[in-house]
Order: sequence, then structure tokens, then C-alpha cells
Amino acid sequence: MPELRRDPIVGRWVIIATERAKRPSDVVRVHESAPARLCPFCPGHEDKTPREVYVSGRPPSSPANGPGWKVRVVPNRYPALMIEGDLEREANGIYDRMNGIGAHEVIIETADHTKDLGNLTDPEVTEVLFAFKARIVDLRNDLRFRYILLFKNHGPAAGATLEHAHSQLIALPVTPRYVQVEIEGARRHYDHRERCIFCDIVMQERKERSRLVYENDEFVVFAPWAPRSPFETWILPKRHESNYEVEPKERLGYCAQALRSTLKRLGAALGDPPYNFILHSNPLRDAPSPSYHWHIEVMPALAHSAGFEWGSGFHINPVPPEEAAEFLRLVVT
Amino acid sequence: MPELRRDPIVGRWVIIATERAKRPSDVVRVHESAPARLCPFCPGHEDKTPREVYVSGRPPSSPANGPGWKVRVVPNRYPALMIEGDLEREANGIYDRMNGIGAHEVIIETADHTKDLGNLTDPEVTEVLFAFKARIVDLRNDLRFRYILLFKNHGPAAGATLEHAHSQLIALPVTPRYVQVEIEGARRHYDHRERCIFCDIVMQERKERSRLVYENDEFVVFAPWAPRSPFETWILPKRHESNYEVEPKERLGYCAQALRSTLKRLGAALGDPPYNFILHSNPLRDAPSPSYHWHIEVMPALAHSAGFEWGSGFHINPVPPEEAAEFLRLVVT
Repeated sequence: MPELRRDPIVGRWVIIATERAKRPSDVVRVHESAPARLCPFCPGHEDKTPREVYVSGRPPSSPANGPGWKVRVVPNRYPALMIEGDLEREANGIYDRMNGIGAHEVIIETADHTKDLGNLTDPEVTEVLFAFKARIVDLRNDLRFRYILLFKNHGPAAGATLEHAHSQLIALPVTPRYVQVEIEGARRHYDHRERCIFCDIVMQERKERSRLVYENDEFVVFAPWAPRSPFETWILPKRHESNYEVEPKERLGYCAQALRSTLKRLGAALGDPPYNFILHSNPLRDAPSPSYHWHIEVMPALAHSAGFEWGSGFHINPVPPEEAAEFLRLVVT
Repeated sequence: MPELRRDPIVGRWVIIATERAKRPSDVVRVHESAPARLCPFCPGHEDKTPREVYVSGRPPSSPANGPGWKVRVVPNRYPALMIEGDLEREANGIYDRMNGIGAHEVIIETADHTKDLGNLTDPEVTEVLFAFKARIVDLRNDLRFRYILLFKNHGPAAGATLEHAHSQLIALPVTPRYVQVEIEGARRHYDHRERCIFCDIVMQERKERSRLVYENDEFVVFAPWAPRSPFETWILPKRHESNYEVEPKERLGYCAQALRSTLKRLGAALGDPPYNFILHSNPLRDAPSPSYHWHIEVMPALAHSAGFEWGSGFHINPVPPEEAAEFLRLVVT
């Protein structure tokens, strides 16, 4: 059983996922570049994954766990957390632990082994974003879970172990620290000014325009004021909304346009870079928040390592966001 | 002039260091594996670095910026921050910025191009740790600086760009966020219990022993309860002390033993892994703190990327610290 442990000084929770490595030498990640005929995410290989928990696009006549789908969500075969069991929170001297209970799922974004999120069509990306929503709506009924983190690792250097386009979902019994810090920072701003800080940022970015990359009727894409790494890019809904999972499909369509445009621009500017994106939303079952605002953070994994930055929380970024944004605005996609 | 920018939501400061990259394509770090005859840190090449700000081991007769030294500290030729100028703090709408004022120095740990910190002698490592102290004591007189971060990147995968053994120092006008979070967490513990949380941790680790790696009269080395990555290892003084720079040379000798033993064990266990270490100490000119406790955090850079973890603050670690510690205890060094 994996374990969740809390650092007593800074309050950071860590998953000790022993199921994922048998020996210390296993800790170096290996990238499996399986050809399509061996890929467990390709149509026809549905028996190589755990049974699907969500599917879209499959004709009503065709059976579950067979081909014919457009987006397919399955439990991760090597989960960092286990779905069965109780949390059993307990102390060990000054330390805290609980069982590593949670869900770890894979969202297979397309049936086509050769495509990625950046070169799907807008309706196809909308289906992926709708799958994110559907999984949150299902999993939030499990009262053991407090937060659902949706993220994507693209490319081996960004931590992807399989080539076929996919994102991941981890349902956690605790809110991740960075989300908590964001929520608290946003609440402080709201307490002082009775305004959402993300709405303030959207307004300033649309006015200044120097860090703006793209906008449509509902979403805005920009390089943030203090980016941690070159070409970090944020996607925010223009209208205030704290919870991703309440967005109607129509608005997710605008988000899909924004996300696809962002990935396409990053791909054209930097030559298909490895990247991560993270979806930050309000914790599960919290009341809609006037101070928090869901968003997506996209981070190309360009520097070989961020070891120092990661250990200190201090970031050195050689590319001003204004330059990155101009580059991304002008790139031909 | 580089710039310091503050993220308005979470309060994180970022250095926008435009001097370090001229074009977006420069952002991918390149490792220079210069042979000793071209290495700017080797004896005889002192003219290839800026003029030294500290040196040890050079006979009184030999001139500055020539050979004969054991440890040499020079300004970084490609500094992330500039030493000359005023901070000029200012607002830009809801955003905050200041000039990128600070010091960025390189501590050349040995004259021998073939050696690393893990295979120097204890007295040689002591000289390096004493150089850290001497630089803090000198730089803290500059009232523009609030914090001095000492760190080491070893190996290209951990961000090192030169092979010759060296560590780095960055003097900052702000306290890095992770240090701030540690200080606040430690203060909360002290407010409740009137005990230093680091002293509590030292006590529990020495009693439980399952995460203990090494100890001598003055220092203890262990795998922390909730490690962010496999084989993360902490080095703490047993006696309470908030400020590194007040340690007498004799105690730094014990620290050198602990550090060298740690690096040697990691090297033997994992085959000369890339690693980072960070020295965390009380902010400059703060009164000695009963709640904070200086320490060194060593992190092997084993996983290919920590992009997701880095973006979420959530860490998945496949190696329990008890297993890592046992491995490091038993390894032949």
C-alpha cells in the first residue's frame, strides 16, 4: 500500500509509492517508445489496459473495452495511489501519515497514435476537456477525495513514459500545497479589495497586451508576469469561475481553442518541446469561490534540470515574458 | 539590468536574467566539458575568471589571482544578478518589480580538476565550508541583501555547466519562498510547543534510527520523513543553531565529515549521480532564532524531469526513506 507522508516543517504531502519501483535502481525513469502495434493505448489493444471508466465517441452498438472510441479513460496500470481502502490517518511521533488512497487515471486523448493534443481539431480537444469534467463530476462523489489534479506530461524530458497522447488525473485526499498557496494568496487579495486577483490579472494583461499571446470570446492566453521558466504560459477564462467542472461544454469549446492554439504556438516556436500542463481548480465540494479562479498552467520543460530552483523555490529565467509572448504571438501556426 | 519580479498570487520572486540568454533558443542549457588545459577554474588560468574575492591556502608570498590557492571564490562571469545599483522597487499595476541587484559568486572547491567534494579530504572540505562562512560574513554588511543562498549543482543533469568542482552563492534582496515557508512552519511549531522543530526531528531520527545514515559528535545525516525525491538526504547540526555563519571552524570540520560522508555514500550507492545541495540558514541580520535551525539538503537529480511535481508541489517518490537510508548506511565507501 502506498503511503502519504507530511513534512512536519512546511506541511508538504508526499506520496511514497513503493509499488512503482522494486529496487533503488528502478528510480531512473525509462521512456517506452512502443511502436503503434505494441502500444497499449491504441485501438484494438483495449485489453492491455485496466477496464475503461469513461469513453466518448463509441457507437451505442459496439461493446465496452473494444475499439470505436474517441477519448478513453482507464485506471493507470502502475498507480501512484490505490482506490480501495481507508485513509487511516495516524501520527508517528512528530510525523503524520495516511494510507495512499486515491485514484490515478489515464485520459487517452485520441485513438490516433500519431497525433498530439496540439494537432487535434478543436472539437476533438473539446472532447478531451469534457472527459476531464466528466471524471471530476464522477469522482467528487467519493468523500475520501479532497482534490483532483489533472495534468499532462508530454515528451520523455517532461516525464512521459508512453508516446501515445494522454493526460493523467490523480484524485487526492489532500489539496496539493501549491494549489493551497494560490487559494490563500487569492483570498488575501479578495479580503483587501473584494476583487478576484485572477480577474485583475486578466484585465491588466488585456489592457497592457505586451504579455498577451491569444484570446477568444471566453479565454485569454498570456505569459505570466513572473514566469518560473522560459515560455511558461497561462490560460484563463475571462469570466470569473472557481470550478472547472461546472463549465458547460460550449465554454469548454472556447477553452479547447485556446489550449490547442497555445500548444501549436509552443510547438512551432520551440520545435515540439517537452512540456507539462496542470489544471488548477477549486477543491472538491468547496462552495463556489469569489476569490479563486480556475486556470491551466503550461510549462515547457526546456532547461535540463531545475534542481536548484526546485530546492529553493527561487527561479532564474533568462527569457522575459514580454519576449516569449511576442514570439508566440507572431509564430506562424 | 536583470529584474526581480513578484508573482502577485503566491508571492514568489523570480529573476528575469536577460544577460544570460540572447535569443529564445539559448534557453536550453549547454554543458561545457572543457579539458583541464582549457578549464577557467584550473590553476594557471586565474585570468579567465573575474578577480578573486576570497582565497585560502595561498602562501603569503604569491600574488593575488595567480596559482597556489586551495579554495578560490570569484564573481560569476555570467551573473544572474548585478552587484552595482539600487533596488528601485516599483509597482506596475497589480505587479511588483525591483532591479536585479545581488551577488553571484562561484566557490572553486579545489585546484585539482579531477577531484570532487566527495573525494577531497575532510580538512579540504572544511576549507570549502569555511569559505562559505567567510563570504556570508563579508556580504551581510551590504544592507541591500536580505538572504544568501549557497548551493551546488553537480553534473549536467543537475544544472552544472562546468565540470571543475564548484559551488555557488547568490546574495538576494529577498528571502526565497521555500526558506520563508520553512521559517514560518518552524515558528508555528515553536509558538505551540516552545521547541525547535528541527531539534525535535534530530531527536526522533536518532531514537528511531530507521532513517539515520550517519552521525558524528556534532552532526546527523538522515533521509527525511517525507522526501521529495529518491535518496533526498538532510544534514543537521545536533546542537541548536539558526545561523550557519556563526559556526566556529572546529564545528565546520564535523560538518565537512558529515557532508563528505554523505556525498561519498550517494556516489557509491548510485554511481556518481548528478545532485544539488542547498544550505538553508536564518536570513541576514535577523536575531538568532530559537525556532529556526540551519541545515543542508542534498537531492540527487535522478528522475529525468520533475515537471509535474514542480508545477503542483506534489511529489511522488518510489523509494521509502527507510530503504534509501539502509542502502546508504550499508554501502561500502
